[in-house]
Amino acid sequence: MIKNLLSLNDLTKDELISLLDFAENFIDADGKFKKDNLFPDKTIANIFFEPSTRTKCSFDIAGKNLGCSVVDFNSENSSVSKGESIYQTVDALSLMGVDLCVLRHPNSVISELAEYLPEMVFINAGEGSTAHPTQTLIDLMTIRQLKGSIDNLKITIVGDLDHSRVVKSFVEGVSNFSIESLTFSGHPSMCSNYMDPVIGSYEPNLDIAVTDADVVMALRIQHERFETDMSLDLDEYKHLYQLTTERISMAKGDAIIMHPGPVNMDIEISETAYQSENSVIRNQVANGVAMRMAVLARFLSQ
Amino acid sequence: MIKNLLSLNDLTKDELISLLDFAENFIDADGKFKKDNLFPDKTIANIFFEPSTRTKCSFDIAGKNLGCSVVDFNSENSSVSKGESIYQTVDALSLMGVDLCVLRHPNSVISELAEYLPEMVFINAGEGSTAHPTQTLIDLMTIRQLKGSIDNLKITIVGDLDHSRVVKSFVEGVSNFSIESLTFSGHPSMCSNYMDPVIGSYEPNLDIAVTDADVVMALRIQHERFETDMSLDLDEYKHLYQLTTERISMAKGDAIIMHPGPVNMDIEISETAYQSENSVIRNQVANGVAMRMAVLARFLSQ
Amino acid sequence: MIKNLLSLNDLTKDELISLLDFAENFIDADGKFKKDNLFPDKTIANIFFEPSTRTKCSFDIAGKNLGCSVVDFNSENSSVSKGESIYQTVDALSLMGVDLCVLRHPNSVISELAEYLPEMVFINAGEGSTAHPTQTLIDLMTIRQLKGSIDNLKITIVGDLDHSRVVKSFVEGVSNFSIESLTFSGHPSMCSNYMDPVIGSYEPNLDIAVTDADVVMALRIQHERFETDMSLDLDEYKHLYQLTTERISMAKGDAIIMHPGPVNMDIEISETAYQSENSVIRNQVANGVAMRMAVLARFLSQ
Repeated sequence: MIKNLLSLNDLTKDELISLLDFAENFIDADGKFKKDNLFPDKTIANIFFEPSTRTKCSFDIAGKNLGCSVVDFNSENSSVSKGESIYQTVDALSLMGVDLCVLRHPNSVISELAEYLPEMVFINAGEGSTAHPTQTLIDLMTIRQLKGSIDNLKITIVGDLDHSRVVKSFVEGVSNFSIESLTFSGHPSMCSNYMDPVIGSYEPNLDIAVTDADVVMALRIQHERFETDMSLDLDEYKHLYQLTTERISMAKGDAIIMHPGPVNMDIEISETAYQSENSVIRNQVANGVAMRMAVLARFLSQ
Repeated sequence: MIKNLLSLNDLTKDELISLLDFAENFIDADGKFKKDNLFPDKTIANIFFEPSTRTKCSFDIAGKNLGCSVVDFNSENSSVSKGESIYQTVDALSLMGVDLCVLRHPNSVISELAEYLPEMVFINAGEGSTAHPTQTLIDLMTIRQLKGSIDNLKITIVGDLDHSRVVKSFVEGVSNFSIESLTFSGHPSMCSNYMDPVIGSYEPNLDIAVTDADVVMALRIQHERFETDMSLDLDEYKHLYQLTTERISMAKGDAIIMHPGPVNMDIEISETAYQSENSVIRNQVANGVAMRMAVLARFLSQ
Repeated sequence: MIKNLLSLNDLTKDELISLLDFAENFIDADGKFKKDNLFPDKTIANIFFEPSTRTKCSFDIAGKNLGCSVVDFNSENSSVSKGESIYQTVDALSLMGVDLCVLRHPNSVISELAEYLPEMVFINAGEGSTAHPTQTLIDLMTIRQLKGSIDNLKITIVGDLDHSRVVKSFVEGVSNFSIESLTFSGHPSMCSNYMDPVIGSYEPNLDIAVTDADVVMALRIQHERFETDMSLDLDEYKHLYQLTTERISMAKGDAIIMHPGPVNMDIEISETAYQSENSVIRNQVANGVAMRMAVLARFLSQ
């Protein structure tokens, strides 16, 4: 059994499914999260080197729901601004009794850190454009809740795939299942790494890509790029790649629309599509707390 | 019974008085706040879009005294800097199991947010120049403690009334009672909305305004204005509008001096007046925690 | 018995030793910190006016291990940015029920504050270049663990002594014991106040200073100075004053190497020396939490 959650490639299919099952246990019959004092002796640290609301609050609330002490490490007010290395910082937290670090970083540093600090438990909360494993666990949990199973589905992903850690982890996670198809779509300048993917296929025409889909996942795009990259035009982008109710109507009638958030409303997805019955974006947010409770409980219990 | 505390206009007189009574229960015989684990299942979020010490700490301590989990939402390190709307942020917190939001914002956004998010409970912790209802509850609690009743008092308010959310809420709150008089005073350029008030009257001469007063409330002025506004001279302002011991001696002997804090010492009020026996400014700070415990407990119990 | 921990000069030798003993009690047989709900009724505030990871997290974790509510006061998002005085801030926290303030400040303000606010308990967590008493308590605890006693030791301190609050407090603390020798070393431009010290002696040649030492303590230097001060050359500095394995081999075989952290790796100390068996720098970090638990428990129990 693995000690850290760095990448979904490290989990066996059984371990992954057992996390999906475990997360459901933290939601009670009224849809509320269970607040039990399960880990009063444990201290976890939230260490975020990138701005975040959802993921950080989600882990914070999950940790408190489990009865842990949660240390909030604010990289801006810390000695990291004195030039202390992240290695020294996390080593110090470990020596201070922190049992588990939830870490987000703009670069791919977590695996190396975990190697140098074998006594600390690491949960990757988003690393560069490499991995965001808890987001994929949430997405698979949400798909399974709505579709009953992850097998035999037609899944389409659209957006800025090249910069997305979400899609990297999703491909790792979904490769455990017998999906019917996995279609990548989006502006060619944002999909260069997915033109000839290891699994699935690239379809530049989103209308074709969403046809008969069971699951359509939109990814966040960096809308600042439209101001700096002359080859991109926002209106044209929206015309070609925005998820609209028209496009959703080409998917299966019970197709679900997903987005890891936060949404750039009326860019990646129209507000009407966001508010539609097909949208399960808000379910993803709610499942986030349950899944992070499951991940923390699982990796604190070793 | 109302669900959110957005404005004192939403409270009936009975509800308001019941909050004043309820707050007294959270102070024990030694003047300490009662720390009981009353709401271990509740999670509240402090969301402040303006700098704050007192109000934020006051709600933080009040929430912890009640046994709640308190999530501290720091707008600077959050996805709001990625352009996420405040609606999406609060909706996400609601989905994550936050039961109640304490919200401060420089603009009048809270009522609209509350309309769009009917499942969240909102406590207005200071909104634009519109409302600051918990401050007024604290002020009325303090007046009642010191004067026995809010009825039959001569009340004078001086300062930058035009920019003050405190005075807006105070007028709403005090209009439930049979006060003898309510006098607004201050530099004409700061009182344009109170020259012809709905209740009470404007008196430009502070010496006259404080004469025989039972309660004199000074409001914070933005002292930066004296550097930018050529028509204002700081020395002249202090000469005409500072609360000094001389001016306080014109009020009733047992008059109380109030200020919502933080005080610009020796601008709105002289240090001697601040330190005098008439000053109940420190009582207001202490009552803040008791009143916020009462407000949180009341609005979490529905 | 003193009420505040402002300087080690305020502690008698008995009180100091009793804190060293008390701190050991908070470490269990497995080297873990004891998490007991000893002070559920107490609220402490961490007020840091300088960036900090270790010290702030250390006090935060120590407070939570004791079951206290911990209020994190972020000076950047606070009314201090509105010009509120630190006196008003701490007075307000006191009125809100904060029982103890852990305070770090770039200037020597804490003694004066403590005088004006006799009802608050203050723990100095690093003040200007004046004092850092808890760091010295940690250092003495670490020396005693490794050497059995603080008496009869040859102690050498090297680094930027002039700007160091750590060395100021260490001299105060160690003066309670019968040390064999106390040698100050370092670049003359960084040791002007220690050329003719009250206790001990200055030795510019670090090779001589470390010879036969039992304890060698390196202090953090501001490496930015090498970019602005023309008389200092980084390579020459490292050649003359870096703790290397060669230099450590001149000390006693069981000499211990200390540093208050965070370390500028390969400037004050070589990475090999940092990783060597003689290095107890990581022990200092771990002892930090136990000692801060002892200090908080001791100063909350009055």
